[in-house]
Amino acid sequence: MEAYPAECRHEIRPIYNSKIERKVIMADENQFVKEITPMDEDFSQWYIDTILKAEMADYSTVRGCIVFRPYGYAIWENMQHLLDKRFKETGHKNAYFPLFIPESLLQKEAEHVEGFAPEVAWVTHGGSDELAERLAVRPTSETIICSMYSKWIKSWRDLPVLINQWANVVRWEKSTRPFLRTSEFLWQEGHTAHRTEEDAEEETLKMLEVYRDFVETELAIPVIKGRKTENEKFAGALRTYTIEALMKDGKALQAGTSHNLGQHFARVFDIQFLDTDGQLKYVWQTSWGVSTRLIGALIMTHGDNRGLKLPPRVAPIQAIIIPIPGQDSESVYARAKKLAGSLKDRYRVELDMSDEKTPGWKFNEYEMKGVPLRIEIGPRDVKNNQVVLVRRDTGEKMIVSQDDLSTKIGELLEDIQRNMFAQAKTFVEKNTSVAKSFDEFQNAIESKRGFVKANWCGSSECELAIKEKTMATIRCIPFEDNEPDGECVHCGGKASKKVIFARSY
Amino acid sequence: MEAYPAECRHEIRPIYNSKIERKVIMADENQFVKEITPMDEDFSQWYIDTILKAEMADYSTVRGCIVFRPYGYAIWENMQHLLDKRFKETGHKNAYFPLFIPESLLQKEAEHVEGFAPEVAWVTHGGSDELAERLAVRPTSETIICSMYSKWIKSWRDLPVLINQWANVVRWEKSTRPFLRTSEFLWQEGHTAHRTEEDAEEETLKMLEVYRDFVETELAIPVIKGRKTENEKFAGALRTYTIEALMKDGKALQAGTSHNLGQHFARVFDIQFLDTDGQLKYVWQTSWGVSTRLIGALIMTHGDNRGLKLPPRVAPIQAIIIPIPGQDSESVYARAKKLAGSLKDRYRVELDMSDEKTPGWKFNEYEMKGVPLRIEIGPRDVKNNQVVLVRRDTGEKMIVSQDDLSTKIGELLEDIQRNMFAQAKTFVEKNTSVAKSFDEFQNAIESKRGFVKANWCGSSECELAIKEKTMATIRCIPFEDNEPDGECVHCGGKASKKVIFARSY
Repeated sequence: MEAYPAECRHEIRPIYNSKIERKVIMADENQFVKEITPMDEDFSQWYIDTILKAEMADYSTVRGCIVFRPYGYAIWENMQHLLDKRFKETGHKNAYFPLFIPESLLQKEAEHVEGFAPEVAWVTHGGSDELAERLAVRPTSETIICSMYSKWIKSWRDLPVLINQWANVVRWEKSTRPFLRTSEFLWQEGHTAHRTEEDAEEETLKMLEVYRDFVETELAIPVIKGRKTENEKFAGALRTYTIEALMKDGKALQAGTSHNLGQHFARVFDIQFLDTDGQLKYVWQTSWGVSTRLIGALIMTHGDNRGLKLPPRVAPIQAIIIPIPGQDSESVYARAKKLAGSLKDRYRVELDMSDEKTPGWKFNEYEMKGVPLRIEIGPRDVKNNQVVLVRRDTGEKMIVSQDDLSTKIGELLEDIQRNMFAQAKTFVEKNTSVAKSFDEFQNAIESKRGFVKANWCGSSECELAIKEKTMATIRCIPFEDNEPDGECVHCGGKASKKVIFARSY
Repeated sequence: MEAYPAECRHEIRPIYNSKIERKVIMADENQFVKEITPMDEDFSQWYIDTILKAEMADYSTVRGCIVFRPYGYAIWENMQHLLDKRFKETGHKNAYFPLFIPESLLQKEAEHVEGFAPEVAWVTHGGSDELAERLAVRPTSETIICSMYSKWIKSWRDLPVLINQWANVVRWEKSTRPFLRTSEFLWQEGHTAHRTEEDAEEETLKMLEVYRDFVETELAIPVIKGRKTENEKFAGALRTYTIEALMKDGKALQAGTSHNLGQHFARVFDIQFLDTDGQLKYVWQTSWGVSTRLIGALIMTHGDNRGLKLPPRVAPIQAIIIPIPGQDSESVYARAKKLAGSLKDRYRVELDMSDEKTPGWKFNEYEMKGVPLRIEIGPRDVKNNQVVLVRRDTGEKMIVSQDDLSTKIGELLEDIQRNMFAQAKTFVEKNTSVAKSFDEFQNAIESKRGFVKANWCGSSECELAIKEKTMATIRCIPFEDNEPDGECVHCGGKASKKVIFARSY
């Protein structure tokens, strides 16, 4: 756990020379610390406190649904922008399909409906009339999209179909947690159709790599790529691939999935095309998605006892300018405004000019909100044509000439992004263990948590027994380092793969 | 009605010198014309034909819901981008509120629920359990948002709250038409809270002006700004303002509305703040929205018998490159690719290399899709380092050096945007008449359609009687030229305003 670097907060500056000023700041800080539960005292409470205090989200009057407040939604907007760019660069186009799915349509694919029916919200009335057929509020859109693809796809020339949708979906969850599991959430769902099995598999893996690259590069969250077991795969898929992240409490989080749907849906929805050889064939399909739970991943990968810590690339505010007016407020405010104006085109910069809060209060506030860089400017800084920069990730503080400020900010934001990824990567490495026996396994899951690598015989029985006994599931059969080097950790039988276990969100 | 400029299509180029080539193109054209019903034969059918043929949207298996296909959705994405920028520049932030609204919440404001209840889709079951309280799928979000604002707003320092939401909404419509009236549609809804009545009114009018500027500048659709009558205002508003456009069939279309909600919702949802004078007061609120019906407005303002005609600023493809391979396909394709690559960063350019369609077929296809500029390149053009440019709006054709192409495209796109607005403006002027007597009024509405200006006494009785007799409604009390210059066109009594009537979508 990082200590709050107090020395970064109370440097000797004109405004802090008065004891009164100092007292106010200290009082606020104590107040502040009281409001966020420390991580190691109660991680769940820390998570909720951070979300509410940073005004990322709020509970609504609708059970299981949250409100995405502007600060939380802005993170999602930044994610959307960066992901959407990647989708378009890989040839995908966005479309929008209906929110409602007729019950008969949802029921067409047996595994699929079995997987989703228990958590569907049903519309039964339009105005005062009862509907002839119930409508599901989409839990995912395979069925409604396939019903359209069967109209649109006729020839091999129509393939591939590469469509993505940004949408809200609803899954009537019993227990919910902001961003991680809510009855309504926001996501994107890609749905593609291909001529051959190879093309579909290539697409599935390509999009998994797009996710890995996005999550690691933009969110600074290291992930493990792998394949889901039969038990854990998507309802209706042939194969499900996943990227798995590790949160600071040692629980895994599935950060994105990409499914090779095979021809299951094509057969049920009769999506056939005339191939180059003159034969009618079923298409091969994929679907893939990430959701607003990535915001939860962001919080739990990078946050600390001070609150949020946001990677610069998705931070709604990359740098906050805090004027410290002192005895010469006019010139300080004027210079702060000028700096803000000159930086606005290049960075997401904000200037907090509110006069009802002390600078010290603001320092805490924006640290809690995870803003990567703080820019302080007081009378002495105006005189010396400088500012004080403070990094959120390390607490490091430096004096920078105003002339070099824009360049320096660019360098620092890049360095912070890099450093946050490195820190998270180190955390995952430190919290990944290997279990050779079931005792070791249980001990690792109970006491150390984190990822536990172990050999597995490949049977569903062992997988479920392990889950029953330890609450740990197979997060994935990783693409790398998956060759067994011993017997199954549970039954002692011949192992088929070395896989990654963890308790998870 | 514009004639299809045939001379622009059949210039003497190497590839057209063969009679066979010409025949293929003519056959395609005839085929093509058959597929879109002419505007003056059946405007509604022309509208539907255009949408389906251009693959903007398709009917879904869900009654009253359409699928936004990539070409239609891309227009919405461009609109979103341009509008969102304006919202942010005027200080607004995006957020996201739940899709569901508990019945008790919706019922809190009497006028509001009366206005929306008949068209609400109701969720009654979550999984297999019946819900204790029915949930409305949001028809609009005032109630759910106000329930949050009452938690968030405590002091004058919290004001103004300037929030916008991009979302899907559902209104269970009896009769539907793609983009114009569908059970589910996409929109944005701004919801703001202010300290004073003046602040709220200023915001309401500011956002109306944002809409006017957006619709006229980006969509090239001229609109009239005005206020709605009591009969036509939003359920629960104090005052509703509107921008009204005129479609090519002479029917008006409400393109955007901005509501001053007064304190109605604040009182019902108890949104109070401590003002600077120490008094607890209710906030003043606004809401404002535009929706995907703007896509319908775009089609019906600019389209012609060839299909769509899209203003460059929102066109998904601003220029389409069509190679005419002739005897030297290799060098033509290579040059076409090079040009596409060099233009991609500056414009939304696509290159159609498909070899199963003739160039003539492609000319028709992209005209039908409304692409503002066509770039033709054949063997002679490669040799002469030139291309042939053809404008969708005028059919004008010109030979341009490849060296000047990027600059020339920029100029032409701007000119097309300007020209499309001017053409639409002329159409509105030609189709706006003045009625001094009720005979004149009825005649204008029946035979000429369009906007009809007439004096009105201000009574709801006359307004409703006129609607009953002519199906025309008061579109708005315009901001300009609203001084009465005679008696009420219906009752002959003293007129209070000169207003604008029309039949409408």
